[in-house]
Amino acid sequence: MEDHEKGYFAEKDSADVVIGRNKDAKDQRLKEVMTVIIRKLHEAVKEIEPTQKEWLDAIMFLTRTGQMCTDWRQEFILLSDTLGVSMLVDAINHRKPDAASESTVLGPFYVEDAPELPLGTNICLDRKGQDMVISGVVRDTSGRPISNVKLDVWQTNDDGFYDVQQKGLQPDFNLRGVFRTDNTGNYWFRAVKPRFYPIPDDGPVGQLLTKLGRHPYRPAHLHFIISADGFETLTTHIFDPDDPYIDSDAVFGVKKSLLAKFVWMDDPKRAEQLDFGNPFWETKFDFVLAPTRDGGSH
Amino acid sequence: MEDHEKGYFAEKDSADVVIGRNKDAKDQRLKEVMTVIIRKLHEAVKEIEPTQKEWLDAIMFLTRTGQMCTDWRQEFILLSDTLGVSMLVDAINHRKPDAASESTVLGPFYVEDAPELPLGTNICLDRKGQDMVISGVVRDTSGRPISNVKLDVWQTNDDGFYDVQQKGLQPDFNLRGVFRTDNTGNYWFRAVKPRFYPIPDDGPVGQLLTKLGRHPYRPAHLHFIISADGFETLTTHIFDPDDPYIDSDAVFGVKKSLLAKFVWMDDPKRAEQLDFGNPFWETKFDFVLAPTRDGGSH
Repeated sequence: MEDHEKGYFAEKDSADVVIGRNKDAKDQRLKEVMTVIIRKLHEAVKEIEPTQKEWLDAIMFLTRTGQMCTDWRQEFILLSDTLGVSMLVDAINHRKPDAASESTVLGPFYVEDAPELPLGTNICLDRKGQDMVISGVVRDTSGRPISNVKLDVWQTNDDGFYDVQQKGLQPDFNLRGVFRTDNTGNYWFRAVKPRFYPIPDDGPVGQLLTKLGRHPYRPAHLHFIISADGFETLTTHIFDPDDPYIDSDAVFGVKKSLLAKFVWMDDPKRAEQLDFGNPFWETKFDFVLAPTRDGGSH
Repeated sequence: MEDHEKGYFAEKDSADVVIGRNKDAKDQRLKEVMTVIIRKLHEAVKEIEPTQKEWLDAIMFLTRTGQMCTDWRQEFILLSDTLGVSMLVDAINHRKPDAASESTVLGPFYVEDAPELPLGTNICLDRKGQDMVISGVVRDTSGRPISNVKLDVWQTNDDGFYDVQQKGLQPDFNLRGVFRTDNTGNYWFRAVKPRFYPIPDDGPVGQLLTKLGRHPYRPAHLHFIISADGFETLTTHIFDPDDPYIDSDAVFGVKKSLLAKFVWMDDPKRAEQLDFGNPFWETKFDFVLAPTRDGGSH
C-alpha cells in the first residue's frame, strides 16, 4: 500500500493525500472544485518553494485582506479584480457568438433604481465637466435593429467619482439613467466625458500593486447593462481609447472590441441644439445582443 | 501585435495579460512568485469554470477566514494546515538525507521558555492520566550517538489539552520540558499518554471540513524540537499508531517514519521504580539528526 493510501503525508504525493481525504464529501461539485484547488495550490507551492517566512508573509497578506473588508469595502474582490480573476470568471460565464458585443465586469458602483428617462436626456444633473453626446444602435446578431431595448447607464463625473462616492457633493442619480431604444433600434443621451479613477488603494491590495510596479487606475469608461426579451443581458463598458490608462486598466476590464471613439466636435450649430458649449465630445457605439440560449430572458 | 501585448483582456491569454502587467516590479522574487500564483490561479479558474455565485461564495469564504483571525486565532494557518500546504512548505524547507529523522509541523502550542530538567523528570505536574515513560537515543547519520543534544518536549494531557489552553486548570508548564542526552546519546523522561484533540473547528475552516466529510482531529502525539551544534534542528512529533485518527490527521502531520510504538507494560517492579501505577505505557523512539549543510548551527 502506498503511504498516501494510509493518509500519511509525503512530499511527492502531497496533493493526492489531501484530495483523498475528501472522499466522503456529499456535495460532488464542492469535491470537484476542491480537487482542482488543492492540486493547483500544491503545484504552485512546489514551483515557488516558499521559505517559511514567505509562507507566513502570504498568510498575513490574506489575513489583512480579509480584515480590510467591511460592509462597503470588499478587498478580496479587489484582489480578484487586480489578478484578472474577476474578468476571467465574467468571460467564462458570458461566452457569446463572435458577432455579439463582449461583456466586462459589473463593478461596485451599479445602483438598481436609476430613473427611466426619455431618449436624449442629459444625465449630468450639475452640468459640471465637458459635455458629451452618446448614441448608437442595438442590433441582433443578424444585424436587425432591436426596439425597446433597455439600456441602464452609469458613469463617473469629470473628476472620476460616481454619485454614490460623493453623496451631497453630486446630486443623487447624477450620471445615471435608464433608456429604451426607439423603433429603429437607436438610443441616445447626453452626459459629460468621464474620467479615469483609482480603485481603493489604501489597503493590502494597493500595497501589492505598488510592490509590483503597478498603478491603481481604471481608464475612463461608461457602464451599460443592456437587456431585451429573447436576448442575453449584456453587462459591459465602453472605453475612451485616448485615456492614459487604456492599456493598463488595474482590473483588466478593457477588451479591444469595447474601445469607442471619443471625438472632439467643433460644431456651434449642433452644440446649440444640444444645449452644449462648443466644442463638445461625441461618441457613437453600436451593440449586438446574443439570443438567449433557452429562448427565455436571461 | 497580440491583444495581450496591448494589455487588453482576452480569455485565452488571461494569465499572460496579468503577468505582463508586473514587468516593472523591482523585487524579482515577488515577481517570480506572483507569476506562478497568477498562472496557477487562472489554470484553476479555467478548469473549475465557477459560476458568478460560486466565485462570490469563494470571496466570502476568504473574507470570513480573514475576519476569524485574532491575536490568538489564525484561521488562514488552519486553512493552510487542513489543505496540506503547511506540511508541504515544511517538507520543502526540511529536506534531509534519507537516514535522518523526518520533520513535521511546529503547531501553535510551542512555548519558548520551558524549564531544563534532569533526565527522567516527570513532566506531568498534576499526575492526571495514564503514566508513560519515553526514552531513546539520538544519533548522527553514521549511527554514532550524540551527547548533549537538547530535546524540547511538549504534549497534551490525557484530555487532549495543552497547558496554555487550560490556564488555571493545568499547572503552568505542565507536560513541557527541556532535556539533554547523556554521554551515550540517551534521553528519557516521564509523562502521561497524550490524547487526540480537535483543531479549532467553530470557524469557516471547520465548516469547510464538515462539508468535505472530514473530522477536525489530530491523532495523539508528542512534540520535539531537537538541536545540537553541527546538526540541523529537527522539529517533529512522534505518534501513537493505535490512535483512532492516525490515518486521518486533520493537518496531515503524520509521516510513516514518525509512528512510535506505545506499549502497555504490566511490570509492577519497574512501575514502582518509576513511581508509576501498574500497568503503564512505554514508548521508545530514536532520532537521527542530519549534519548542517554549511557546518554551522541552523
